[in-house]
Amino acid sequence: MTTVEPAADTRTRLLATALRLFAEHGVEGTSLQMIADELGVTKAAVYYHFKTKAEITEAVAEPGIRELDELVVEAAKHRRHGERVDHLLIGFVDLVVRHRVLVALFSSDPGIDAALAKSAHGVEGLKQALISIVAGPEPDVTARVSAMVAFVGIAMVGGEPDLAEVDDETLSRELLGAARKLLGRPRRRVS
Amino acid sequence: MTTVEPAADTRTRLLATALRLFAEHGVEGTSLQMIADELGVTKAAVYYHFKTKAEITEAVAEPGIRELDELVVEAAKHRRHGERVDHLLIGFVDLVVRHRVLVALFSSDPGIDAALAKSAHGVEGLKQALISIVAGPEPDVTARVSAMVAFVGIAMVGGEPDLAEVDDETLSRELLGAARKLLGRPRRRVS
Repeated sequence: MTTVEPAADTRTRLLATALRLFAEHGVEGTSLQMIADELGVTKAAVYYHFKTKAEITEAVAEPGIRELDELVVEAAKHRRHGERVDHLLIGFVDLVVRHRVLVALFSSDPGIDAALAKSAHGVEGLKQALISIVAGPEPDVTARVSAMVAFVGIAMVGGEPDLAEVDDETLSRELLGAARKLLGRPRRRVS
Repeated sequence: MTTVEPAADTRTRLLATALRLFAEHGVEGTSLQMIADELGVTKAAVYYHFKTKAEITEAVAEPGIRELDELVVEAAKHRRHGERVDHLLIGFVDLVVRHRVLVALFSSDPGIDAALAKSAHGVEGLKQALISIVAGPEPDVTARVSAMVAFVGIAMVGGEPDLAEVDDETLSRELLGAARKLLGRPRRRVS
């Protein structure tokens, strides 16, 4: 007798299990078979949802990419430049730190490119949107470099395994502080 | 009749050709056969020097890693903290910008880990050495995060294809400026 389970639920459990195994063994070191074993299902059952591991890494990253897409749109709505920058920086730090396990995985896996390509803005569009909000529409080299260092720094350092022992709140505060210093933004008042 | 050529020279030409093809087609998109064709030799001739593409990517990165090892040792020799930081930052920016094609390749290729493992300090040792010179021997979270953002930012943004049109001197100045702002180091006086 087999248990009939809604496909959507299996898919969710499958992605959660995959993420856990990726974090433990790396994306390279995790096979579809390992995911099936951990879930207690057949490889065919995994295969029903995802044909390749690349499809799994994309699906795992998808909610974060969607959040990032929305963040860029929301941040751009502010009237004042400073408000756009603050909205984007705070949101970006928050997103990276909440997904830090995932970010750590992708910073050493080429799968991030495939996942980013799923952005509504496209990979290049997303990069340009992030940079132009912070650096303005026609930025000089100084503004572009500062903005790039800020985003790359937040994303890569946010996922850094050496900082795994630092709690989310502290890490968020420090990443935001570093980005603000770099971009010459005043520290936010406690409200 | 075959031309007898010193093996060392073939190896050097092979690595230069590999780097050029990597830059054009990506590491993934370059095969041993393509390298052989481009050099006008047989695949067996390539195979005589390198058994796998991974061995080639390691060999291509090796001089840069060795320079980085030396830089860390030299920077650490200064008596004053500020001098150590300046030596390391200036040297690191210079190294990244001189090797920016290579840096761009490795920032999206897992081969960087294998190459970094060849460091005399080891991957973790190298990271720790860079951070401890800048952040001091027992750094707090703020100092660690700032140092990490600075190094990751220099390395990733230095290899950024979107900045390929910016000349080396300008890029170096901007990367150094960003790192100094982040680390609270004064701008260097023109001497």
